[in-house]
Formats: sequence, C-alpha cells, structure tokens
Amino acid sequence: MVAKKNCILRLSRYKNELYRFKKLGFIKIFSEYLADAVGVTSAQVRKDFSLFDISGNKRGGYTIDALIEKLNVILGKNQIQKVVVVGAGNLGTALLRYKNFAKQGIRIEAAFDLDPAKGSQKSGVPVRPMTELETFLRRNDIKIGILCVPEVAAQSVFDAMVNGGIRGVLNFSPIQLKTPADCIVTNVNLEVELENLIYFVTAGQSAK
Amino acid sequence: MVAKKNCILRLSRYKNELYRFKKLGFIKIFSEYLADAVGVTSAQVRKDFSLFDISGNKRGGYTIDALIEKLNVILGKNQIQKVVVVGAGNLGTALLRYKNFAKQGIRIEAAFDLDPAKGSQKSGVPVRPMTELETFLRRNDIKIGILCVPEVAAQSVFDAMVNGGIRGVLNFSPIQLKTPADCIVTNVNLEVELENLIYFVTAGQSAK
Repeated sequence: MVAKKNCILRLSRYKNELYRFKKLGFIKIFSEYLADAVGVTSAQVRKDFSLFDISGNKRGGYTIDALIEKLNVILGKNQIQKVVVVGAGNLGTALLRYKNFAKQGIRIEAAFDLDPAKGSQKSGVPVRPMTELETFLRRNDIKIGILCVPEVAAQSVFDAMVNGGIRGVLNFSPIQLKTPADCIVTNVNLEVELENLIYFVTAGQSAK
Repeated sequence: MVAKKNCILRLSRYKNELYRFKKLGFIKIFSEYLADAVGVTSAQVRKDFSLFDISGNKRGGYTIDALIEKLNVILGKNQIQKVVVVGAGNLGTALLRYKNFAKQGIRIEAAFDLDPAKGSQKSGVPVRPMTELETFLRRNDIKIGILCVPEVAAQSVFDAMVNGGIRGVLNFSPIQLKTPADCIVTNVNLEVELENLIYFVTAGQSAK
C-alpha cells in the first residue's frame, strides 16, 4: 500500500510539472524531462504511467494535454473537491487564504471555530461555529477536512468530523489521532519536520 | 538512508509523546505505551532505541526524564536552534506565530520578504528586506531556513539561502528545488498532500 501511495504522490507531482511545461509552451514531453523535473528516473515515470495504462510514443513522447487529462481523472480532479478547515487560528486562517488549493480545483467550503468571529472577512470563506460542524458536513456531503485545532481539542474535534462523514483528514495537530478503519489521516507535523532537518544538518549528514 | 530518516522521524515522535506522558504524571514508561501512542509496534520502539544505545528495564520500563534527555541530545535539541523564515506572506506569517516551534527549542530569528513592512508587528519577529538575507545568515551562523516564497521566486531565493550558509530547508513552494549535495530539502506540499487524500477517499481505499 505504501508503494501505491508513493505512486499517487508522484502522479500529482507529474501533473504539477506538466502544467509548468505547458505554460512554457510545450505540447509534447519525453519521460526523461518529466523525470528530471520531479527528481526520479525516467524508468520510474514510465512504470508509474504503465500502471494506469498510459502509454507514450518512443519518437514523440507523451502529449501533455492528454496526459494532464488522464492524470486528473485518476486523481479525482475532474470535478471541484469540497473541503473544510476546522480551527481558524493562525495556521487555519493562512490555509483559508492559500491560493494553490483553488488552482488545484480544491474549494474550501467553510471554516469552523469555537469563535466564528475569527478571520472570516479577510479570506472570503465563512467561519462558522463549531456546533454546526457535523450538520454542515452531512448536508454538503463533504468527505475531506483539514484539522488545525490545538492539540488538546484535536481528538474530540476529529471524532466529530468523522461523525459528520469526513473520510480523509489533513492533520496539523501534533498528536497521533485514533482513527477508524474507513478514514485516512495524513499528518503534517511541522515541528517534527524541522527537528529532523536540524538533526540531519547537525549530524552533517545527507537525508537523501 | 531512508530507514535512518524514518527512525529519526520516530525518535521525535517518541519524544513528543514522552512530554505528554510526563505532563500526565508518568515517571516511567513501557515501550508498549509509547508504541501505542505513536502507532508502531513495541518491538520497533525497542529496536530504534537500541540503535542509539538506549536500554530500558524489563520490569520498570524506561525512565521518562532520562529518555527525553537522551532523545534531545540525539536530535540536537539540547540547545536553541536558530531558524529563518523566508517569505512573509500568509503562510510565512502564520509560521512566525506558530507556537509549537518555541516549545521545541526552535527560535525564528528573523523573517525576510521583498516587502519588509509585512506582518512584523503581530508576531514579534522582525521582517527584514530580502537584500539583507545572505549577510544576516552568515553573521548569525544560521543553517536552517523555511522557504515560503511564491513558486516563481523559489529557486533564486533558495540559491541565496544556500550562499548564505543554509544547509537545511523546509520548502513550502510547490517546486522541486535544484539542491547542492551538502544541503537537505524537505518538501511540504500541502496541495499534493490534499490531492492524495482526495484520491484515496475517492477511490474508497485505505492509504495505510
């Protein structure tokens, strides 16, 4: 499953690079170019694509538009993806204003906070009271949430999200959430990432 | 090297959990408890610790204070770690205010932005003009930086950081940076993480 997860991770990176090549005026692309841009081998690119029945042409390479279209279907990106942000503190508010989500077809439908007066004006996304969370999720059929509440509230808020129908959570709280089998949690632990960097730099080693 | 990187990642998570157990009043702890809190097997905990010559007592477990102390030395946490944030937009500013860094002995010495008027008042961290970046890094012997500038500026700003002596970068820009061999880059690509979640939830699969 880890192998598949890594493959999906690469597919999104291919897609992002393809948009950049397209912006530069490219119509077609060889696996070598894409491999170089993403930092993998070209054999890896071809292998990843073959898993999803995507084939190129030895002479001409892959057609960029067709490739982007296929990757978008695989990644569920051919429709707007609705997401909520739970916790509208500093980090939550920054995410509400984060422009790259919209570019990727991800729309933050609402934010939730104990104090709904927080930050709503500046981002254009409504901040609603936490008490409305479960009802809102169910009514709008939202499956994905970003969790940025303080550590002490994280598990109970997460449980409420799951009750509301959330099946995937990007978790910024620095705890290991107890997670039901039908829900996926991706942890983004910034201080742990920074600590690891510090360790590797201190130890004078390369974390390649 | 990946195995070692994962081990370091677990060590920081052990450490964070140990602080939580300590706060709850625990003095000693068994590997099983720690394993459960972090979501690994207890054999993994013991294996990780043995790599660094940390041993427990079968009857009494590990002494929490001694364990935290040892982990802090391994992770280079027994001294304040100086860090800069480059790019003081929404995300950069949120990081300046992010309280968990200070808890971990990480101090943001300064932020840099083309527009130094950005956000300095609210966080207490000075925002300096980008032109001062390299000189400041050298003068203060700073090795670690957080990069949150827009995509289009990321590579050139990164190069300036490396010139100033930076050896580890937490990169929030959604591009693959060309990196010299003596510098480590950890990418935090929020839209890619979110896309992956969406994919796995859409596909109804578990990304364990």
